[in-house]
Amino acid sequence: MRYETLAVQQRDITLFITLNRPQARNAMSLKMVEELNQAFQFANQNPDIRAIVLRGAEGHFCAGGDIKDMAGARAQSSNTGDEDPFFALNRAFGHMITQANHASQVVITVLEGAVLGGGFGLACVSDVAITAAGAQFGLPETGLGVVPAQIAPFVVTRVGLTQARRLALLGERFDGHEAVRLGIAHYLCESPEAIEATLDDVLNKVKRAAPDANRVTKALLHQVGTIEMEQLLDQAAHHFAAAVQSEEGAEGTMAFVQKRLPHWAQ
Amino acid sequence: MRYETLAVQQRDITLFITLNRPQARNAMSLKMVEELNQAFQFANQNPDIRAIVLRGAEGHFCAGGDIKDMAGARAQSSNTGDEDPFFALNRAFGHMITQANHASQVVITVLEGAVLGGGFGLACVSDVAITAAGAQFGLPETGLGVVPAQIAPFVVTRVGLTQARRLALLGERFDGHEAVRLGIAHYLCESPEAIEATLDDVLNKVKRAAPDANRVTKALLHQVGTIEMEQLLDQAAHHFAAAVQSEEGAEGTMAFVQKRLPHWAQ
Amino acid sequence: MRYETLAVQQRDITLFITLNRPQARNAMSLKMVEELNQAFQFANQNPDIRAIVLRGAEGHFCAGGDIKDMAGARAQSSNTGDEDPFFALNRAFGHMITQANHASQVVITVLEGAVLGGGFGLACVSDVAITAAGAQFGLPETGLGVVPAQIAPFVVTRVGLTQARRLALLGERFDGHEAVRLGIAHYLCESPEAIEATLDDVLNKVKRAAPDANRVTKALLHQVGTIEMEQLLDQAAHHFAAAVQSEEGAEGTMAFVQKRLPHWAQ
Repeated sequence: MRYETLAVQQRDITLFITLNRPQARNAMSLKMVEELNQAFQFANQNPDIRAIVLRGAEGHFCAGGDIKDMAGARAQSSNTGDEDPFFALNRAFGHMITQANHASQVVITVLEGAVLGGGFGLACVSDVAITAAGAQFGLPETGLGVVPAQIAPFVVTRVGLTQARRLALLGERFDGHEAVRLGIAHYLCESPEAIEATLDDVLNKVKRAAPDANRVTKALLHQVGTIEMEQLLDQAAHHFAAAVQSEEGAEGTMAFVQKRLPHWAQ
Repeated sequence: MRYETLAVQQRDITLFITLNRPQARNAMSLKMVEELNQAFQFANQNPDIRAIVLRGAEGHFCAGGDIKDMAGARAQSSNTGDEDPFFALNRAFGHMITQANHASQVVITVLEGAVLGGGFGLACVSDVAITAAGAQFGLPETGLGVVPAQIAPFVVTRVGLTQARRLALLGERFDGHEAVRLGIAHYLCESPEAIEATLDDVLNKVKRAAPDANRVTKALLHQVGTIEMEQLLDQAAHHFAAAVQSEEGAEGTMAFVQKRLPHWAQ
Repeated sequence: MRYETLAVQQRDITLFITLNRPQARNAMSLKMVEELNQAFQFANQNPDIRAIVLRGAEGHFCAGGDIKDMAGARAQSSNTGDEDPFFALNRAFGHMITQANHASQVVITVLEGAVLGGGFGLACVSDVAITAAGAQFGLPETGLGVVPAQIAPFVVTRVGLTQARRLALLGERFDGHEAVRLGIAHYLCESPEAIEATLDDVLNKVKRAAPDANRVTKALLHQVGTIEMEQLLDQAAHHFAAAVQSEEGAEGTMAFVQKRLPHWAQ
């Protein structure tokens, strides 16, 4: 597969996806949204891929939405009687971020430089977020007269209403230290070397986890709060019974008893 | 409008509301509840008001419910066959705090001295909370044999069930440092000067945000978790499309390109 | 009542329950699950019991599920046509932990040594958690090829999705410092003496709280997010009115005015 806006590479169990529009601080264009969708679909069709690393080229994660797409939508808006092109543009980002949120792999973001608007939103749906101390986070939307429409709901889910309302309504900027304090990111790194070491460590931990067990567990976590608790626990017990009696469950238990790594970790 | 229990003043984009019963550490009387409702309604009818600052007179925010109202309800209770006056008294506070929670302005609380019971609840619905290091927070209700009925639900929403159950069941007292650690307040101030400087900074940030965009964003944040996510994102994309094509959206984009402040920030 | 796997003792207002299988680091066997259910039911039938302290014998809280039960379920699985014994085994733990979560008493966990898998889950449903600095927390399930089925939902409720997805998918181990930072535990203790002093302090605070008011408040806290907010506040106001007019409400108010301890605190 060829990508215009991404650099994509598979190594061992990991698909590395790099947002690759450094001239625009990796601003999220409609093309990039489409290509991210494709890359996530590719990962879902390849059971060997158990982790996805999302990062940005040349020192920035993602500076937000691409302003040129706005101009494109405006032109289209005056030409056609179709569905509102601004609605379509905005919603396309929402579909992509939702796909990223529910990806069956462990999604890891590496956050450097600008982590703004849509880039902030993407960080908020990762399972594991590693941040540079100097990264710059923020939701600048309302300062520009627009609404963080496909982003704010994921910020609330990430950090709770208490912090989300402050961040969204004040357009506040903050760094990696504060991002870890707020729970947006999990690991704080003071240097590029520390980022790579942390990323290696995280990927090693993903490798230790059984692939199917991790997929089922991630889906289970997402269901909390969306269905009634007793029903969720019933479903979860069926998943447990299936996992124990699967090839993974047998191998995991045997490896534990034999004090060796299970085959999926080798 | 005249107020008995509040001091209310409008300056630029901000309505300053001061709880003004210092002889009772600004305890929340039924009269104060009614007047707060009026002040919030006044703000909602004045689109120029984009921020509301809530604070207490003479060193305390609010020491909780006013005990004299209890005696009044008790007298009424024995006199009438009406709706339970204790129910009515309690529920009136809940209606007011709900109105404060959903106010279309950015609501900022300044927390000093006693922040107890209903005062604690009010702090929990502010968009931005600035606390003095020495403020005293707590939910004393169950120690008095009563229930933090209209308060506890907002504490859960503010800090999560994990901390709320501890705070409510132990009646624990804590200071501003802990309030920031728990996420009840956002900014910790060691002096009165620091409070005023932080408040100025916050109000400047509110001024930078487009009025309508902030209103729509705040309403959107409140909807998260109350309706299904895909439906919420659809609605939000319509809001985005409307904002982009509004006068605010045009001015915001133009100001950004021209590297000047948008008119709403001047 | 006789227990095989627990040591249970009542002192003043508190039921002390000690997980008592130290040879297995207090791993949670099916028998222990059943006995915990019995102990919680006993507490519910004794209104004098206002606090439950859950801890482990000999330096560990609970190392997770007991592996021998797995072998038992496997044997049963090949012998019978009944309900899947792995489902039943797993779900039994879920019923117990749900009972612990909703116990009408204040439930306090003392976390030392291993706090893994089901032990971690149990910590996550306590109202107050006191942790040793050196305690070891973690969800090792997916590393063994299985799913933290009856545990992960309570971890999400405890610390939010953001941290839960990282902890469950990486199988990460961490200590008491991190447990407090994440909000799993409330109090960090550097020594056994500090643990006992903190526990005494917490139990004294429980004693200060009116028994019925605490029960009603705990049930109210659990309802937040499960029913619509206005409806919840209506119900809560009825609870408030009942509490104020109860013997507890009268005694609490009178004690406050008379500057003495209410009778339940003596």
